[in-house]
Amino acid sequence: MLFHVAMTVKLPRDLPAEEAAGIIAREKAYAQDLQRQGKWRHIWRVAGQYANVSIFDVSDNDELHQILSGLPLFPFMEIEVTPLLRHPSAIREDDS
Amino acid sequence: MLFHVAMTVKLPRDLPAEEAAGIIAREKAYAQDLQRQGKWRHIWRVAGQYANVSIFDVSDNDELHQILSGLPLFPFMEIEVTPLLRHPSAIREDDS
Amino acid sequence: MLFHVAMTVKLPRDLPAEEAAGIIAREKAYAQDLQRQGKWRHIWRVAGQYANVSIFDVSDNDELHQILSGLPLFPFMEIEVTPLLRHPSAIREDDS
Amino acid sequence: MLFHVAMTVKLPRDLPAEEAAGIIAREKAYAQDLQRQGKWRHIWRVAGQYANVSIFDVSDNDELHQILSGLPLFPFMEIEVTPLLRHPSAIREDDS
Amino acid sequence: MLFHVAMTVKLPRDLPAEEAAGIIAREKAYAQDLQRQGKWRHIWRVAGQYANVSIFDVSDNDELHQILSGLPLFPFMEIEVTPLLRHPSAIREDDS
Amino acid sequence: MLFHVAMTVKLPRDLPAEEAAGIIAREKAYAQDLQRQGKWRHIWRVAGQYANVSIFDVSDNDELHQILSGLPLFPFMEIEVTPLLRHPSAIREDDS
Amino acid sequence: MLFHVAMTVKLPRDLPAEEAAGIIAREKAYAQDLQRQGKWRHIWRVAGQYANVSIFDVSDNDELHQILSGLPLFPFMEIEVTPLLRHPSAIREDDS
Amino acid sequence: MLFHVAMTVKLPRDLPAEEAAGIIAREKAYAQDLQRQGKWRHIWRVAGQYANVSIFDVSDNDELHQILSGLPLFPFMEIEVTPLLRHPSAIREDDS
Amino acid sequence: MLFHVAMTVKLPRDLPAEEAAGIIAREKAYAQDLQRQGKWRHIWRVAGQYANVSIFDVSDNDELHQILSGLPLFPFMEIEVTPLLRHPSAIREDDS
Amino acid sequence: MLFHVAMTVKLPRDLPAEEAAGIIAREKAYAQDLQRQGKWRHIWRVAGQYANVSIFDVSDNDELHQILSGLPLFPFMEIEVTPLLRHPSAIREDDS
Repeated sequence: MLFHVAMTVKLPRDLPAEEAAGIIAREKAYAQDLQRQGKWRHIWRVAGQYANVSIFDVSDNDELHQILSGLPLFPFMEIEVTPLLRHPSAIREDDS
Repeated sequence: MLFHVAMTVKLPRDLPAEEAAGIIAREKAYAQDLQRQGKWRHIWRVAGQYANVSIFDVSDNDELHQILSGLPLFPFMEIEVTPLLRHPSAIREDDS
Repeated sequence: MLFHVAMTVKLPRDLPAEEAAGIIAREKAYAQDLQRQGKWRHIWRVAGQYANVSIFDVSDNDELHQILSGLPLFPFMEIEVTPLLRHPSAIREDDS
Repeated sequence: MLFHVAMTVKLPRDLPAEEAAGIIAREKAYAQDLQRQGKWRHIWRVAGQYANVSIFDVSDNDELHQILSGLPLFPFMEIEVTPLLRHPSAIREDDS
Repeated sequence: MLFHVAMTVKLPRDLPAEEAAGIIAREKAYAQDLQRQGKWRHIWRVAGQYANVSIFDVSDNDELHQILSGLPLFPFMEIEVTPLLRHPSAIREDDS
Repeated sequence: MLFHVAMTVKLPRDLPAEEAAGIIAREKAYAQDLQRQGKWRHIWRVAGQYANVSIFDVSDNDELHQILSGLPLFPFMEIEVTPLLRHPSAIREDDS
Repeated sequence: MLFHVAMTVKLPRDLPAEEAAGIIAREKAYAQDLQRQGKWRHIWRVAGQYANVSIFDVSDNDELHQILSGLPLFPFMEIEVTPLLRHPSAIREDDS
Repeated sequence: MLFHVAMTVKLPRDLPAEEAAGIIAREKAYAQDLQRQGKWRHIWRVAGQYANVSIFDVSDNDELHQILSGLPLFPFMEIEVTPLLRHPSAIREDDS
Repeated sequence: MLFHVAMTVKLPRDLPAEEAAGIIAREKAYAQDLQRQGKWRHIWRVAGQYANVSIFDVSDNDELHQILSGLPLFPFMEIEVTPLLRHPSAIREDDS
Repeated sequence: MLFHVAMTVKLPRDLPAEEAAGIIAREKAYAQDLQRQGKWRHIWRVAGQYANVSIFDVSDNDELHQILSGLPLFPFMEIEVTPLLRHPSAIREDDS
């Protein structure tokens, strides 16, 4: 089941640089692991923003929430979730 | 080059049913042709809305505009365009 | 799987009274049938508005969309969908 | 009498972890006690957010305010209240 | 139980003058009758707007909705409802 | 002359508890004194919010501003002012 | 007593040209008469908009409303009212 | 050339009282000097707000920016600029 | 003197095709004539929108308004005006 | 390929003056270097704001993002990106 998730990162200025670097490294590993599992299907950077647009493929709302609330950057993000489904005009096999 | 495009359709009530059906059929053919060409890379329906979220892969802003302004439903849509690029955490080969 | 759906109805003034009455009657039958099936779990009227707040229990985003886009009042509604899940503080057995 | 209440939590970063844990534990006990009394009828987590959607069944506006302003997390929440009533299409006995 | 209700009237231009006058006359009678019953406690005009701010004193959300949805101008109004209660600093006996 | 004033309080977290208590006590005395003078005609609490809705009866804009800017909580409030007048449907003698 | 009033005109397309011209002529005469009386103290056009920003000097909210609701263009305007008073830094005698 | 400028002041709480007093005194002198030069033509306080509405008469956008960015309170203000011109219904000689 | 002007066109559906074509042709001639005069310095299409972003170089607010309100598409446009000036980091001679 | 970029700077108050001056100097050098390369085609100051409106000419979204995210002021800016293309009414050779 697909979800469109838009994430915007707002790192507080007083976050020590080393702590920030650690969080970002863990975020990257976390994101890549979920991509390998097929659950985080797409991730793109938004031009000019510290933000991404992602597509998740999860079994239900609960799994989506566990993934998102487990993001190392979760406390520093604004997240917007939109449930998706196959479009009647889609031709690509793997877009549902 | 990738763009995130959100389209919301607002068909006017006084559009004759037959005319509407014709526009929608042409829209579907137009969308599927562009998908086959690889320019309209993804299209998903938004749950509960007459709307879609799409990813386009075009050579530049001009080509994107020619495609969008040529949509049979263009006069009845609200369109929001966001330029994307490869995310540093992406692992999928074809997400850029 | 649970979804929070807020629906606001805007009936156009030039909809003939008889046609409106027919749509509203079909909407009621449709809503009650889905309640009996357990898919439309709750529906409440918002005080002072021609609007409702509802909770749906469906198998996935696709089923939610089929139900919502099939509403007789769908062309006259603004719909907002929010995916829900069990809250860690919930004690009621049937709130998930 | 029913009310729809949407709560979004924004914990300040400089709240000591131990103090935060204490507040959250008291919030959970408070919420579960009110659920047992039947006053906090439903509570659901919003996917991807530190937020909930709840339904309260109280005797009047005053009781609702006493409950909400007594929440341990009240100083850290944005709260939106919407008065509800039985919908004419509802069939469930306990949705009013 | 008190509610703050803000009403803004938007009369469609194609409403025949006579029909509009009839609706407005019925609205006035309806409003004055409810004021005499003590249910529509206050009504003020907003300067420069075809709008009012009102205070209702009703037994519950359901009664408020029956009153508001019965307004002759209801189909032409935007209505915003806010539940109120006695303020701890209030000294006036009849402000609760 | 009547004004509708909506006030929302946002106490900063680092305001010492004793200082906050002093400000709130002075605010209450200030509000009650103005109610006794008939200038602060009504004050109601908004359910679920640290906010009030008030009606002021003052001689002009200047007096209103002197009163509002003199509120002990003024530096911690968002204030919205709306000028009111007698509604043509009002029957209560003292609503103008 | 001074009020800042922002007016934006939205003439419906189906208003016959002659009727529109008549309304605009009456509006101009009305505005100039009130300027001569000193009640409509200033009026400026907003660059690029069919809109104006005005300053009114009236005895109270009621007079302001009678003037604004009597504007020939009133049914076609969005109006926003802000009460003003003398600024402590003002030096001009006639700015209060 | 006329500009409508709306300024809202947000003094940070941790600004030392003496420093704030100095800034406000310099702001007042600056504003009065520009009024005497005829460049800051009007200034009014907004009732209930730490805000003003002003009219500037400057030779061009550049002069306006130099004046506004030189305000002692500039770092603590939200400023909104609207270009104005003589209204065709204006009769006052000095409103252009 | 430079102004940033954003224009969005909303052609009404019931505008006859021939009339629309005539307006658009006159708009193009009008825009090109002003470009030749150097007053309409830049015009760009916004990708995916029936909209443009333009830079005007005019002698004052009045001239800007005469140009904009004279646009054949003026009655069908939303226009947003922002006054500009030379940026301290600009190196291009003709950007002021 | 052209992009419209609006940047608003919000320098935190606790940024040491010397550090701020260093960032601003590096920002200016960075902006002028990109102007010389022809990639940052225009930059204008917005009157009354610590903000600019710019036009970039880059080869793709990726290059735009590398430029913007490399701005010394990037962590202190709100940035809004709009893709542009040649307008059909443009006559200037270098506006595409």
